[in-house]
Amino acid sequence: MTEFEHGGDIYTMMEKDGRRDRAILDFSANINPLGMPEGVKAAAAAALEKCDLYPDPRCRRLRRAVAEKEQVPEEYLIFGNGASDLIFRLAAAMRPGKVMVPAPTFTEYEKALRSSGSLVRYYQLKEEEDFVLNERLLASLDDSLDVLFLCNPNNPTGSLIPYELLRRIAQVCDEKQIFLVVDECFIDFVKEPQDCTARKLLDQYDNLFILRAFTKNYAMAGLRLGYGICGRPELTRALWETGQPWSVSLIAQEAGIQALREKDYLEKARSLIFKEREKLQRQLSQLGYKVYDPGANYIFFRLRQLSAPAYVDDFIADMESEGILIRSCANYRGLGKGYFRIAVRNEEENGRLVEALRRRETRWQKQL
Amino acid sequence: MTEFEHGGDIYTMMEKDGRRDRAILDFSANINPLGMPEGVKAAAAAALEKCDLYPDPRCRRLRRAVAEKEQVPEEYLIFGNGASDLIFRLAAAMRPGKVMVPAPTFTEYEKALRSSGSLVRYYQLKEEEDFVLNERLLASLDDSLDVLFLCNPNNPTGSLIPYELLRRIAQVCDEKQIFLVVDECFIDFVKEPQDCTARKLLDQYDNLFILRAFTKNYAMAGLRLGYGICGRPELTRALWETGQPWSVSLIAQEAGIQALREKDYLEKARSLIFKEREKLQRQLSQLGYKVYDPGANYIFFRLRQLSAPAYVDDFIADMESEGILIRSCANYRGLGKGYFRIAVRNEEENGRLVEALRRRETRWQKQL
Repeated sequence: MTEFEHGGDIYTMMEKDGRRDRAILDFSANINPLGMPEGVKAAAAAALEKCDLYPDPRCRRLRRAVAEKEQVPEEYLIFGNGASDLIFRLAAAMRPGKVMVPAPTFTEYEKALRSSGSLVRYYQLKEEEDFVLNERLLASLDDSLDVLFLCNPNNPTGSLIPYELLRRIAQVCDEKQIFLVVDECFIDFVKEPQDCTARKLLDQYDNLFILRAFTKNYAMAGLRLGYGICGRPELTRALWETGQPWSVSLIAQEAGIQALREKDYLEKARSLIFKEREKLQRQLSQLGYKVYDPGANYIFFRLRQLSAPAYVDDFIADMESEGILIRSCANYRGLGKGYFRIAVRNEEENGRLVEALRRRETRWQKQL
Repeated sequence: MTEFEHGGDIYTMMEKDGRRDRAILDFSANINPLGMPEGVKAAAAAALEKCDLYPDPRCRRLRRAVAEKEQVPEEYLIFGNGASDLIFRLAAAMRPGKVMVPAPTFTEYEKALRSSGSLVRYYQLKEEEDFVLNERLLASLDDSLDVLFLCNPNNPTGSLIPYELLRRIAQVCDEKQIFLVVDECFIDFVKEPQDCTARKLLDQYDNLFILRAFTKNYAMAGLRLGYGICGRPELTRALWETGQPWSVSLIAQEAGIQALREKDYLEKARSLIFKEREKLQRQLSQLGYKVYDPGANYIFFRLRQLSAPAYVDDFIADMESEGILIRSCANYRGLGKGYFRIAVRNEEENGRLVEALRRRETRWQKQL
């Protein structure tokens, strides 16, 4: 079994020390720190009473609710067993010949595209530009490309694509017949989502696919629910026909319908995240880390460049011994050792993280 | 959107008459009539408290529990978002050139294989042999085949493959290097599962893949959980790597672990099903239908051959007007009009079905 390469893998940590009941503070998965809304839990629990039924393969009630929220025709929508399911179904349905993905970014795009036989080209984000996408990208878009995947805000760097650049990318993609996929799974945790989203470009460009998830914003990672929006109904129709008919569970559909009714929850989470993010950002900087501007509910940083390799190499293990799980970003294409990502959690949890980090830095200062 | 072609689609029926709260008696999906065990509901409800976490991508606790139940090494097991998910992942991971499937059988095999570019050959089950698989199949297995899919008991016909024939098929497949997939999703509702299952052949043949589900036997269709057993660990490893990492939800994993502890539940369901099945079989025969020997928790039958086409054509609509959903089998390859399948439900529900069928037959007798 190859090593698992994503955040949120508390299970390997639990297996490692044989303590499966162990309390782990998981900063490796970027989940809403408020947890699943009580209303959603109640709706999911109620749905258990009818889980002897198959789910609606077309997610009709959920689709109507999301269409209303997003103000799009129902035919623009497709649902999946988490957004990741849709990435694989997109790749399987389109089988693009040549695609481009940024480096670093979420690794499932590449995995899905390779599994469908695509040739993957990487657009390297530059360290000296803080890994922020800029207009250099435009020049690299040529007619030979079939699909471009972007992640906004980008995972793991947290950087945002300036809207004007996004608009120009969509325009060039349209001219060169490149299908543009914009993963906006973390857009609800951006300060001004309405200024960042590609949603406004949907009516103009039918070569645009926006990916969204309930997983992160409603803390439903264990239930799995994502959706896509695209103004090309023949593509969404093809996606409904790709893979098994019952990929979205009945319980996820019911939970999703209720989540959309939780009006105050997201605002409350956003306030918490913005406040805590600023504090964490400052504290990590004070520890001497290079902290990249965080666009969403997670923070990407680089450890200090010390001459002792163990300072970097033992970081994850040291934090694990404190019961804290952090995402190493060393296995992202385009990154290397020393880069890490943490989620923004609640005040008490973030405090415990910072205390643990301070203890470690103090220990190292004595050793050097 | 193409028409949905499976049972369990109560949603289209509800949309049709705009009565989404309508009580529908669904005989089209073959689900355990006892409903989801209370213990499983409780475990699933408890799991909601941790559904802000991602699921374990390797289903480790569930895998240990199933390995113990099936008495197989853990490496033999792979889990999916329902058995259907595994059919598609098998097709995607193996990309077999030439495959054979019986006709009629469960339609997702063909759909999954076509989506992976396979050439599909059909092995026609004969009406005059009551659609029962016999040793004619052996002669049709040639070296050019890569994979053979079998469904035991077969869906929709309900017929069983005699064990001695199954053993010989596995032997010939081994000799001719044909990978054999046996879908045993309904085997728990066979009278003597231990005499029918391919489980005993696993140690001898590593070209054998057995497909199982929690969906039907534990009435968890809305939660989605299936698994595969195969003595070729490099294949199960490849399947873990096929598609997204989090295909099995956390709630389905927890529900599955609890389901295996529900010792009396399956026996109770089996007693009910065998008793009701016999009664239903007799009653359908008395109505003049040709009833095929039912191996599992559903009954396959053909309406009488009357000269009036509406007798057959209006059957589904007539039953729908009674609030009863029945699976028409006309769209199965190798079948035609007049074939239907019903699930075996509880005594009261089966009684309502038979009453409705009797009313219809009486009406027709007057018309002819």
